[in-house]
Amino acid sequence: MIIVLKADVKEEAIEKLIDKISGQGLIVHDIKRGGVGRMLGLVGDIPQALEDSLDRVDIVESVLKVREPYKLSGRRFHPEDTVVSVGDAKIGGGNFAVIAGPCSVESEEQILSIARDISNSGAKFLRGGAFKPRTSPYSFHGLGLDGLELLKIAKQKTNLPIVTEILSQEHLENFAEDVDIIQIGARNMQNFTLLREVGSLKKPVLLKRGLSSTLEELLMAAEYVINGGSDQVILCERGIRTFETSTRNTLDLSAVPVLKQKSHLPVIVDPSHGTGYWYLVEPLSLAAVAVGADGLIIEVHNMPQNALCDGQQSITPEVFHHLMKRIKRVYEAVHEMK
Amino acid sequence: MIIVLKADVKEEAIEKLIDKISGQGLIVHDIKRGGVGRMLGLVGDIPQALEDSLDRVDIVESVLKVREPYKLSGRRFHPEDTVVSVGDAKIGGGNFAVIAGPCSVESEEQILSIARDISNSGAKFLRGGAFKPRTSPYSFHGLGLDGLELLKIAKQKTNLPIVTEILSQEHLENFAEDVDIIQIGARNMQNFTLLREVGSLKKPVLLKRGLSSTLEELLMAAEYVINGGSDQVILCERGIRTFETSTRNTLDLSAVPVLKQKSHLPVIVDPSHGTGYWYLVEPLSLAAVAVGADGLIIEVHNMPQNALCDGQQSITPEVFHHLMKRIKRVYEAVHEMK
Amino acid sequence: MIIVLKADVKEEAIEKLIDKISGQGLIVHDIKRGGVGRMLGLVGDIPQALEDSLDRVDIVESVLKVREPYKLSGRRFHPEDTVVSVGDAKIGGGNFAVIAGPCSVESEEQILSIARDISNSGAKFLRGGAFKPRTSPYSFHGLGLDGLELLKIAKQKTNLPIVTEILSQEHLENFAEDVDIIQIGARNMQNFTLLREVGSLKKPVLLKRGLSSTLEELLMAAEYVINGGSDQVILCERGIRTFETSTRNTLDLSAVPVLKQKSHLPVIVDPSHGTGYWYLVEPLSLAAVAVGADGLIIEVHNMPQNALCDGQQSITPEVFHHLMKRIKRVYEAVHEMK
Amino acid sequence: MIIVLKADVKEEAIEKLIDKISGQGLIVHDIKRGGVGRMLGLVGDIPQALEDSLDRVDIVESVLKVREPYKLSGRRFHPEDTVVSVGDAKIGGGNFAVIAGPCSVESEEQILSIARDISNSGAKFLRGGAFKPRTSPYSFHGLGLDGLELLKIAKQKTNLPIVTEILSQEHLENFAEDVDIIQIGARNMQNFTLLREVGSLKKPVLLKRGLSSTLEELLMAAEYVINGGSDQVILCERGIRTFETSTRNTLDLSAVPVLKQKSHLPVIVDPSHGTGYWYLVEPLSLAAVAVGADGLIIEVHNMPQNALCDGQQSITPEVFHHLMKRIKRVYEAVHEMK
Repeated sequence: MIIVLKADVKEEAIEKLIDKISGQGLIVHDIKRGGVGRMLGLVGDIPQALEDSLDRVDIVESVLKVREPYKLSGRRFHPEDTVVSVGDAKIGGGNFAVIAGPCSVESEEQILSIARDISNSGAKFLRGGAFKPRTSPYSFHGLGLDGLELLKIAKQKTNLPIVTEILSQEHLENFAEDVDIIQIGARNMQNFTLLREVGSLKKPVLLKRGLSSTLEELLMAAEYVINGGSDQVILCERGIRTFETSTRNTLDLSAVPVLKQKSHLPVIVDPSHGTGYWYLVEPLSLAAVAVGADGLIIEVHNMPQNALCDGQQSITPEVFHHLMKRIKRVYEAVHEMK
Repeated sequence: MIIVLKADVKEEAIEKLIDKISGQGLIVHDIKRGGVGRMLGLVGDIPQALEDSLDRVDIVESVLKVREPYKLSGRRFHPEDTVVSVGDAKIGGGNFAVIAGPCSVESEEQILSIARDISNSGAKFLRGGAFKPRTSPYSFHGLGLDGLELLKIAKQKTNLPIVTEILSQEHLENFAEDVDIIQIGARNMQNFTLLREVGSLKKPVLLKRGLSSTLEELLMAAEYVINGGSDQVILCERGIRTFETSTRNTLDLSAVPVLKQKSHLPVIVDPSHGTGYWYLVEPLSLAAVAVGADGLIIEVHNMPQNALCDGQQSITPEVFHHLMKRIKRVYEAVHEMK
Repeated sequence: MIIVLKADVKEEAIEKLIDKISGQGLIVHDIKRGGVGRMLGLVGDIPQALEDSLDRVDIVESVLKVREPYKLSGRRFHPEDTVVSVGDAKIGGGNFAVIAGPCSVESEEQILSIARDISNSGAKFLRGGAFKPRTSPYSFHGLGLDGLELLKIAKQKTNLPIVTEILSQEHLENFAEDVDIIQIGARNMQNFTLLREVGSLKKPVLLKRGLSSTLEELLMAAEYVINGGSDQVILCERGIRTFETSTRNTLDLSAVPVLKQKSHLPVIVDPSHGTGYWYLVEPLSLAAVAVGADGLIIEVHNMPQNALCDGQQSITPEVFHHLMKRIKRVYEAVHEMK
Repeated sequence: MIIVLKADVKEEAIEKLIDKISGQGLIVHDIKRGGVGRMLGLVGDIPQALEDSLDRVDIVESVLKVREPYKLSGRRFHPEDTVVSVGDAKIGGGNFAVIAGPCSVESEEQILSIARDISNSGAKFLRGGAFKPRTSPYSFHGLGLDGLELLKIAKQKTNLPIVTEILSQEHLENFAEDVDIIQIGARNMQNFTLLREVGSLKKPVLLKRGLSSTLEELLMAAEYVINGGSDQVILCERGIRTFETSTRNTLDLSAVPVLKQKSHLPVIVDPSHGTGYWYLVEPLSLAAVAVGADGLIIEVHNMPQNALCDGQQSITPEVFHHLMKRIKRVYEAVHEMK
């Protein structure tokens, strides 16, 4: 880390700062080369509290961070790709996988029918909401624990591992037991208590990017989960909030190669929430494959017009079946010659 | 609610839709006046689930909502201003109040010193973080329950009611007992479980706008709290995330009159987080007073350069003292002739 | 168009409004069906000035526009795809084409070398800036008319039609004579005078989306060009401004299928400006192909590290050559089974 | 300027870079202090082209700019406030002034009536659009040169200097002769040709911030005008584009103190375009005064409901009269004790 000092700072104040820093076990290089201003170079393992406080010191002009703030989720000390696996199903490190299912679990018949269909089409994981975060307290909030039970039945019949969202710490035990990949939704990406506790379960975690979170903040959220105990984290781009209103969110596909460069974690894309319209799911799924995503999470509903939530962005099993074939073709085209 | 149907829709499909709606106890007016397309007018108390599903029905072109989606937090059925009170201290309905204190409670000496200073300058409430949400798992996260104890001591000595942020349901009991106004931070504005549980304590709640939340979403979050049990909710504008980088956030002062028109709840402004720089706290505080805010929440620290968090945006007790005098003058100027 | 009136409006005021509207040759349906409020349905060709004024009339609650505001650029009255052609080179309606070249023309040697390379790799058009819009008045602003001359030489030698940006009306004549596709840059997307005058040249126009323009505004800008005289307009998604800073802009690939649904004009993507980093050009180019774009515009420079502008986002002719092969593979995979 | 080099860079490459830089007349300090990486410190007047190219050099990790990119518009070399004056009317350097008038000039009767009213209420300048930029080619675009004539008549009768927007270079002569302050609108803030040519007229210029322009970009646009010849530039905050839809734009009042710290130019606020609703003009005007603006530009129309543009955000002369009294009171309260 390099600290650039303001012009005309008193020698006394500089010495006080150097003392403060070296008092924490760091080596400080005092760089006085004329013309470009006085700088301090810091060597050693910089405590976060010190780092947080430096740009508030009044003699400091600016602080140049040479290192990114994430460690466990970054590639620097973990160059090889992480592979997240549940049984035979894998995501990351060359393993491409599609997660599919309805926005919310509505009935045994519904979830079973969809699970069978998507499995036949080649999906590797079943998604389905049991606990649903909704903007209105008067909207449908999911079947709760009953929904989890229905997901378990669907898993028994189809062998598809389950992906579902946790909303509250009170359900940690249930999720630990019944859920294969625990999803943390966009609205909870900075619910740090939840991140840490879910991490402590040491299970695979699907972490969605917040609506207005930078990629660095997403990696810091992953850092909480890994620091909490689980290194099986999947990152998910699901659209950010912008001024554009013709789509529900703006799907940021550049996020995929940027995240994969900075991090070893698998990166998947959610074209359903990312666009908000079923007719955009197909083109954006193919684009996500082409941009290098490790997987997709897609909303599929057998009767979208009657869905209890987000029907507008769900595709039917028939459309999904056709899409899976196209995904396969594009995936091959992209990966046969890198 | 008015439903505009697509052109050339089959009579059969329309009748099916009318049956579905009237089956839920609503009166449906079938409006066929030539030239402007077929419309359905719905009268009665529309269930949220029905409302959520209508724009996904394939024969529907668009849905015109005549009513806003919030009820308890809106002015329509509650025209008079809500006043939030803790003992003699009041916010809203003509009562202007300033909440002040450090970003985080650091020691008994620190919090006592600041509390006395701000009380002398005219602040009505003491803020101070015991549990701090931080982007990095390696940053200082507050003193936790020890911090709450220090806040209680400061309250005993100064009589200032306490405002502090809750991060997790596990501390609900502690907050119920010790805290006067429970703050829900920007990152948790859509942590619906927390909103509801905090509401159930039936205590005053300070609800901060999320970084990328619309005003309608803020009012829906308040709806969760009120629906949970507490009608003593204070709304807080604290800056939104935009492309501009010369301030930490973009403080949206138009939000104040818009919220006050739509809602009966008091609205306060946080110029410290809203701008991120101490030198902007003074002008933006005055602007918040002039725009009609019911109060302010300001970060004050006795030694900002040593603060364990957010020192860059904290002002000293001396600056705060001077600011309080200017706030009083501007408040009088704004309110003497409306 | 449907006008929803406020509650408790005086009959007199409504009649005055109806008179005003019907005075402009429109038929007004007065819809009084109880319970859903009073509405007026307007039939006929609504003058824009009337449309603009209606939502300011004090008895009006809201206005429901049934039609989009663009006419010439929309698909409603022009269902078949527009194909833009220059000699044998075509874009749109099933014709995929790549435009490539340096950010700015620097010398005869440079532009000739790049033009030959990209032509050999399969590019159909040569881009190169002669007039450069730059944030700073002290930056390099292009070679101007000399740059146009160099582009003409490159065209003579390679047969590639020329695409270059116009910044000012004073160069209209030069562009009319020498340029094959006239580019209107993002910063000028709402320079309405320029849009109209360039349209009047009746030549192909490449219209870039503004940094914070909605898709509707982009189509309205195209409407100006077409209204001005040219129906050969290519729309270009080149990234929008958001809070994310790890890329120069946020490339909005959903814009492609949305625009192609609403409009008959060809839509291309600029992954160079859209991301700002050369290493992101390849994955985002493939994604643009997969999402259904009609073409790409890519910055290629023989010595990016010495480029006089935007070298950071330029790829070398070698990388471009390899990319063109991958684009072909992905294009085939996407289009062989729709 | 400090250049931080990547780790493990070859000595040869570094020397090549040092040669390149010193070849342009700069002194280069090679800083090799162990542990913090190799850095180059540059002393001297750095050519913009060199600065633009440095972060693309492949051995460069990052570039630390010690100086802001604007020179003429910045406070560094021009610490005292600029005062813009037209006859006796002044803005800046302690002179507060209000510019008022209709969105567009519609008739002699209209502009005269409004001009007299606002003059009586204390406005110092008359605004009125003759050339209007409109999103749709079918909307009313102003009376053009006839509108300028009407403004001149209003000026003769009221003595108020005229502020009006220029859209195209072809009217430069007319504006040079008849207009006192030439406005450059938000959509043209980066129309660099226009900026430079308007600057060359050496008249006062009112420069509006673009919808998605950073404050640095606004100051760079002012740099173009000053570099073109006029140092009489007024900066105007008029709302930026964000995700919030309850106001037309998000008025960024923090921009005022930030701009005044960085620049010597006067800063005014447009609460009419900034909010889009007449009922928000009053509170946001007062807030702008409190935050330290040097003036306001407000839309006033004698019959807002019949206005040919933007009636929804215009206030009546009566409301304006009352507002001016409140502005005076708040201004005194803010400035009597700084």
